[in-house]
Amino acid sequence: MHAYRSHTCAALTADNVGETVRLSGWVHRVRDHGGVLFIDLRDHYGVTQVLCDPDSAAFADAEQVRAEWCVRIDGEVKARDASLVNPKLPTGAIEVYIRSIEVLGSAGELPLQVFGDQEYPEETRLRYRYLDLRREKMQANMVLRSDVVSSIRKRMWDRGFREYQTPIITASSPEGARDFLVPSRLHPGKFYALPQAPQQFKQLLMVSGFDRYFQIAPCFRDEDPRADRSPTDFYQLDLEMSFVEQQDVFDAIQPVLTGVFEEFGGGKSVDQDWPQISYRDAALWYGTDKPDLRNPIKMQVVSDHFRESGFAIFAKLLEQDGTEIRAIPAPGGGSRKFCDRMNAFAQKEGLPGMGYIFWRDQGNGMEAAGPLAKNIGPERTEAIRQQLGLEVGDAAFFLGGKPKSFESVAGKARTVIGSELGLTDENRFAFAWIVDFPIYEKDEESGKIDFEHNPFSMPQGGMAALEGDPLDVLGYQYDLACNGYELVSGAIRNHKPEIMFKAFEIAGYGEDEVRKRFGGMVNAFQYGAPPHGGCAAGIDRIVMLLAEEQNIREVILFPMNQRAEDLMMAAPSEPTSDQLMELGLRVIPQE
Amino acid sequence: MHAYRSHTCAALTADNVGETVRLSGWVHRVRDHGGVLFIDLRDHYGVTQVLCDPDSAAFADAEQVRAEWCVRIDGEVKARDASLVNPKLPTGAIEVYIRSIEVLGSAGELPLQVFGDQEYPEETRLRYRYLDLRREKMQANMVLRSDVVSSIRKRMWDRGFREYQTPIITASSPEGARDFLVPSRLHPGKFYALPQAPQQFKQLLMVSGFDRYFQIAPCFRDEDPRADRSPTDFYQLDLEMSFVEQQDVFDAIQPVLTGVFEEFGGGKSVDQDWPQISYRDAALWYGTDKPDLRNPIKMQVVSDHFRESGFAIFAKLLEQDGTEIRAIPAPGGGSRKFCDRMNAFAQKEGLPGMGYIFWRDQGNGMEAAGPLAKNIGPERTEAIRQQLGLEVGDAAFFLGGKPKSFESVAGKARTVIGSELGLTDENRFAFAWIVDFPIYEKDEESGKIDFEHNPFSMPQGGMAALEGDPLDVLGYQYDLACNGYELVSGAIRNHKPEIMFKAFEIAGYGEDEVRKRFGGMVNAFQYGAPPHGGCAAGIDRIVMLLAEEQNIREVILFPMNQRAEDLMMAAPSEPTSDQLMELGLRVIPQE
Repeated sequence: MHAYRSHTCAALTADNVGETVRLSGWVHRVRDHGGVLFIDLRDHYGVTQVLCDPDSAAFADAEQVRAEWCVRIDGEVKARDASLVNPKLPTGAIEVYIRSIEVLGSAGELPLQVFGDQEYPEETRLRYRYLDLRREKMQANMVLRSDVVSSIRKRMWDRGFREYQTPIITASSPEGARDFLVPSRLHPGKFYALPQAPQQFKQLLMVSGFDRYFQIAPCFRDEDPRADRSPTDFYQLDLEMSFVEQQDVFDAIQPVLTGVFEEFGGGKSVDQDWPQISYRDAALWYGTDKPDLRNPIKMQVVSDHFRESGFAIFAKLLEQDGTEIRAIPAPGGGSRKFCDRMNAFAQKEGLPGMGYIFWRDQGNGMEAAGPLAKNIGPERTEAIRQQLGLEVGDAAFFLGGKPKSFESVAGKARTVIGSELGLTDENRFAFAWIVDFPIYEKDEESGKIDFEHNPFSMPQGGMAALEGDPLDVLGYQYDLACNGYELVSGAIRNHKPEIMFKAFEIAGYGEDEVRKRFGGMVNAFQYGAPPHGGCAAGIDRIVMLLAEEQNIREVILFPMNQRAEDLMMAAPSEPTSDQLMELGLRVIPQE
Repeated sequence: MHAYRSHTCAALTADNVGETVRLSGWVHRVRDHGGVLFIDLRDHYGVTQVLCDPDSAAFADAEQVRAEWCVRIDGEVKARDASLVNPKLPTGAIEVYIRSIEVLGSAGELPLQVFGDQEYPEETRLRYRYLDLRREKMQANMVLRSDVVSSIRKRMWDRGFREYQTPIITASSPEGARDFLVPSRLHPGKFYALPQAPQQFKQLLMVSGFDRYFQIAPCFRDEDPRADRSPTDFYQLDLEMSFVEQQDVFDAIQPVLTGVFEEFGGGKSVDQDWPQISYRDAALWYGTDKPDLRNPIKMQVVSDHFRESGFAIFAKLLEQDGTEIRAIPAPGGGSRKFCDRMNAFAQKEGLPGMGYIFWRDQGNGMEAAGPLAKNIGPERTEAIRQQLGLEVGDAAFFLGGKPKSFESVAGKARTVIGSELGLTDENRFAFAWIVDFPIYEKDEESGKIDFEHNPFSMPQGGMAALEGDPLDVLGYQYDLACNGYELVSGAIRNHKPEIMFKAFEIAGYGEDEVRKRFGGMVNAFQYGAPPHGGCAAGIDRIVMLLAEEQNIREVILFPMNQRAEDLMMAAPSEPTSDQLMELGLRVIPQE
């Protein structure tokens, strides 16, 4: 017989009754029923009930074991009494009578119980992660993650992509965040950087002729931690293709993600139709560039109804340049209580409040209620209702000013309204491509033009477009939103050196600066660069969505805490003076 | 029609004759045959011959293009004249008459030709890696690497392993090499380390109950570069299993590697029988712990034949403790010329020389020749011949002293002899497990006991073994040798804290030191650790063997040069003073 097990703890069924077996695992739970010890023995695969009679030779040993001890038992499989069969457990038809028990690894007092649902502070969970990970939900999350990554890989291969590994200790590849640096020992005073993404390398792969690349790529950004962001390393499905336009990239990744969400989405419906929404429309309709389309609410511009109206605040606002009034329709939100709550929500978010109108019928036909309706009068109110397509029982909320000043609150209000009114379909994954991102933005204060997103995107219209107003230039650049999260980001790249230099010049970067910062890629583009493009999808976020978790640390094996520390491994830690000497570094004493 | 291509450059056959097609790719070669331009158009998938008549409207454009320009052509597929069909090329039956041509990316003067077999200095190849990678052999190597990794993954999944990603920015995990450090911004003066291997994390995964883990894992060691070692990051197939003994690990990985070598070995035979050879026997028989078993030569101890013999050098040597005489039999090496050459080889390797005997028949029956035979006389010479099983036409070489002083040269001599005499079967992959490594070694000078290899291995015999002579303690520790390379290394781990502390104590490390250096793992072992073990296989080395490359940089996309620099990306580079300030570091000026 094998030294440790003849079966896993998920394997024994009624077919094994009468067999002598060997099992190894952890003591999940011990119960004493009238002198008989019942142990739930757990391994990665399942749980088997093993038991020990007081007259068994093994009883004295069995009595010693405690929760989370790792043990090996030899015993005989017996059928459970019909009344005791547990149909929910694969091993629920049998139990194993212990003949001998051996402790493989004992356990001290547990700082964290594996059995049961007790909550623990995150610090405790991370410090004793190896206990936390034994819990059923964490095992399931990590298995899910592993299966998702494997499924993505398989789907990418099936679509003609090959996985290539790009360097990890390399040069800075600025993606807008801070680099992690790695001091060089052979070149004291110089530093490598960990890649924020394999952006330059995947583009170099296209210039090298590899045509269709992907990688489940580790990425490194020295950012301050957040719930949905790991403070150190995280993974992306990174892909790039040569000789493609934007739609080709969409056609490549959509079936991969659809397939993964269908395979692991727990039966939720997965949208097959992925609308393409311009960045401007997304801001207008949803107040965000990562809209949750499970929520059917679509905002509208209603400025004309308020121009020179009796509602002085809006009427005055509209006299200024660049202002607008937008409405958030709220079907089913037609009560003063709900409207007041939403008004309070807007105030909590830092706005003066949200005006509202709601439509009711108190026996005299439809009536528009709320202070705003009174101020603008029935005609305008009715015109608004018709524009928004609302009926009795519905409401509408209004926000005004320069869109940038209220858009994000409007987006949040839309989310809350959709969720509180039950409009948002929780059993669905809804996707939307956000396209036509502007290449540039203007800093309100300094008036300086800078890149809005990624500086490597091809401007729509190429060189000609760059001759006009920079703020009108759109890029072949896109994000994929899913249920309110940004899941994918990508672009058709600017592969023409002359267009790239011009694009950077507009943002105030001279040719020298560009060559210095992106020299590897820019040089490469001078030797026959193909048109190419791609995208990257956040693995951690995909798994979070599938696991229905709100915190990225629930889907990472050994995450850092919110201060970017690993308390279990004691990282970061002080270097030895020899290490610093070898690297030619001195630590500046902190005040 | 698609913006860039209706077909790849490998797709068109006689079936497409008459079609109008669009192709994109690189100008591999341009030839002018009597005014007609012939262009070999190349993409990742293949080459298609396209051509342009002087009377074509596209001729003026076609005339402009040069090697490695990236172009798109529209044209008509025509059958080649029967005499011009190239059966070696998938597209060899057709050619495409250019109707229009568009330059997608032009190229400057090339520092490196893609077409042809010209050799370039490594510096040139790495600086213009994107051109180097377009060459046929490099494309093939990278595709091979990608396919090998994918095949390994598939095979591991098929055997019930799941892939889990362990942290990259983490704590030091000492494996005997130098760590790369990463300064922490949030904790100035403290550093993370990049893992030399996921050793501690994979063991923590076993303590966490994950049972069967693998990972194609990036590893980071700050070592001085060598031909078969990347100076920064490299990849391992890392695996770990719970509730296993040594043989279980062997049984898990052998079919994976056998399968991969059969799949990608280009028809070479792949040994199915993997002998297990003790570390001591490997040193004796092969002079190395990574023997090349394609070479049938096995060394033997022949001390007794030289004790008190007429060959004074060996006879005297044997009077000292711990000395030995070993013979390298050389079937077919029986000529003075060969023997002298091998003697010179040993001298070049720093030894005084290798004594030899060879057996010949100059018409008077078998005769032993060489100075050594004369010195020890015919009886001893014959006894040696019989022990080694040699005949006329064979030779034997002799080395004496303390084995450590000559073993490695003996091993090299065995390799040269096997290769020069044609004994080594080049068309074969031969594997051997090297087992029973000693846990400890004694420093000759200081007399100090230290770990011979990995300090985490379980000593054979457990605690009891550690009570005796440390130098007698063997570990459940193993390497896999293939064709003279170390391909895999692994162990059954020491999962019992008390045995671990004892093992470290013998090597002079107190409990505090162990807790400080390996705290994460040692603490975890106190909460029900399962017996576990595993191994790691070098991906780069497997691909090198399969690609028949001698240099690891031939199987890595963007490797560093021998000074650990990336000239293409300009890494490492000087940090900005802001970066240093944020990290709380100062660079010590170099003298």
